[in-house]
Amino acid sequence: MGSETSQVCFYGVGVGPGDPELLTLKAYRVIREADVVAYLMNDRGISQAQTIAQAALDDGKEHQQYLPIQIPMTTTRGVVNNVYDQASADIQTALSQGKSVAFLCEGDPLFFGSFAYLLERIEGKYPCQVIPGVTSISAGSAALGLPLTMLKESLAVVSGRHTDDYISQILSNVDTVVIMKAGLARERLMRLIEEAGRTDDANYLQYISRDNEYVTTDITTLDKEPGPYFSLFILTRTPLACRGQNDNVDE
Amino acid sequence: MGSETSQVCFYGVGVGPGDPELLTLKAYRVIREADVVAYLMNDRGISQAQTIAQAALDDGKEHQQYLPIQIPMTTTRGVVNNVYDQASADIQTALSQGKSVAFLCEGDPLFFGSFAYLLERIEGKYPCQVIPGVTSISAGSAALGLPLTMLKESLAVVSGRHTDDYISQILSNVDTVVIMKAGLARERLMRLIEEAGRTDDANYLQYISRDNEYVTTDITTLDKEPGPYFSLFILTRTPLACRGQNDNVDE
Repeated sequence: MGSETSQVCFYGVGVGPGDPELLTLKAYRVIREADVVAYLMNDRGISQAQTIAQAALDDGKEHQQYLPIQIPMTTTRGVVNNVYDQASADIQTALSQGKSVAFLCEGDPLFFGSFAYLLERIEGKYPCQVIPGVTSISAGSAALGLPLTMLKESLAVVSGRHTDDYISQILSNVDTVVIMKAGLARERLMRLIEEAGRTDDANYLQYISRDNEYVTTDITTLDKEPGPYFSLFILTRTPLACRGQNDNVDE
Repeated sequence: MGSETSQVCFYGVGVGPGDPELLTLKAYRVIREADVVAYLMNDRGISQAQTIAQAALDDGKEHQQYLPIQIPMTTTRGVVNNVYDQASADIQTALSQGKSVAFLCEGDPLFFGSFAYLLERIEGKYPCQVIPGVTSISAGSAALGLPLTMLKESLAVVSGRHTDDYISQILSNVDTVVIMKAGLARERLMRLIEEAGRTDDANYLQYISRDNEYVTTDITTLDKEPGPYFSLFILTRTPLACRGQNDNVDE
C-alpha cells in the first residue's frame, strides 16, 4: 500500500524547537505522507523529534513504518559512525523498494543537527530534500521578545564546546551572541561571560517552547550544575529601546 | 463579530522565507483567527508577506480586517519613524477595541525584520506574542543541501551594509558566514570574498523558496549589478564529506 504512489525521496524534515504547533505545513504533510519515518532515539527509548511530530504521525498514511535509530551514550566517533552506517543502509533499503523516507530533525535539519551524517551517506545515491524548520534561536528570541539583529548589528552562533579563547574573542567582538548547547558547560560559560563584562547582556533558556521551558534574564541566579543539551545563552548588546534609533532604515 | 471571542493580543507572526507551505501550523492558525491582519506594503501596493500568507487569509475569520502599512522608498529614519508611529497608533486603536492583531513578518519576526519597530512601540501597553518562523538562512542551506554548522564550527551572520573592515575580519575568522541583504552590495561583497580567498566557499541565493528562486554555487558567474533585498551569500569552509570526521559526536 502507498509505496506505489509515493515519491522515492529521502527527506530531512525540521520539526521545530519543541512546540508541536511550530511544525511547518510542509513538514506536517511530508511526515503524514511518508512510507517510512525515521528518527533518533536515546537509550531510554525516548525520541524528542518523534514526540514533537506525534500529531502528524497519528495522522500518517496507512501502513506507515517507523525506523527508530538508537544512539548510544558515547562520545566515541567510531561507535556513532557505525550507527549512522547501519541507519543509512536501512534507509537505502527502503528507498530501493520505492518508498519515501522522512527523517525527523529537531529544529532545522542543517543547523547543529545530526541529519548531515545521514545526508552525506545517501546524497548522490537517491533523491534528497531538506524541509527547513524553526530553530531554537528563533524560538528563544520570541520567548524573550528580543530582536536578535537590527540594522548593522551582527550575530555569531557558537557551540558551548568551543575553546575558552574562541568564545571570549566572539563575546568581545560581536553584538549578539548565541551559545548553543550551553547547559553542558554552564559554569565555564558563565565565567567567560562575566570576564567579558557581558553578564547584564545575557539570557539563559532551556527546553524552549516545550512544557518544561525555563527562561531567565538574570544569569547570576543560575546554579552551576550542568544543564541539558537543549539550552542556550542569548546575549544582546543594548536594550531594545536604545537600538537602531539613529541609523538608516532596515527595509 | 468575532472580537468578543478573540484574545486581545498583538502577534508578530513569522510567515517564513516565501514558500506558503513553510508557514507553521501556529502561524496559519493565528492569522486565520485574527480580527485584524497588518503587513508592510511597498509603494507599488505589493506585500510579500501578504502574498506568502494568502491561503491563511483566504481561510480567515468572518469580518477580518486588513491593515496595510505603506513604507515609503526612503532611507531617512525620521520619515519611516513617522510611518511606524502611525501604524502602531492604528494597531493600538484596534487592540483598545478588544481586537487581536496579527502583523505578518517575512522569515522570522525578530531576525533582521521591521517588526521590532512596532514591538518597541506597543510592548508594555498591550499583550504581545511572537510566533517564530523559518528564516531565509535555513531555507538557503536546505536549497543547497549544505550543513551550516557541524560540531565545533562557528557561524556568523552579517548584513551587507557592514563596513568592508568588519566583513573582511569575519570572513577571515569564521568558518561559516552568511551575508544578508547581499544583492544590494553585490559587487563590493564579491570583491571582499575574493580578497579573503573564499570565492570557492561561496554560494549566492536570491528569492529563496519562491517561484523566482535563483541559486548559484559559482559566484564568479554572477554579474555585478545590484540584486534584490532578498538575497544571501552563504560561505562554508569545507565540503561536507571532509567535515566532522575526526571529532567527538554532535549529539
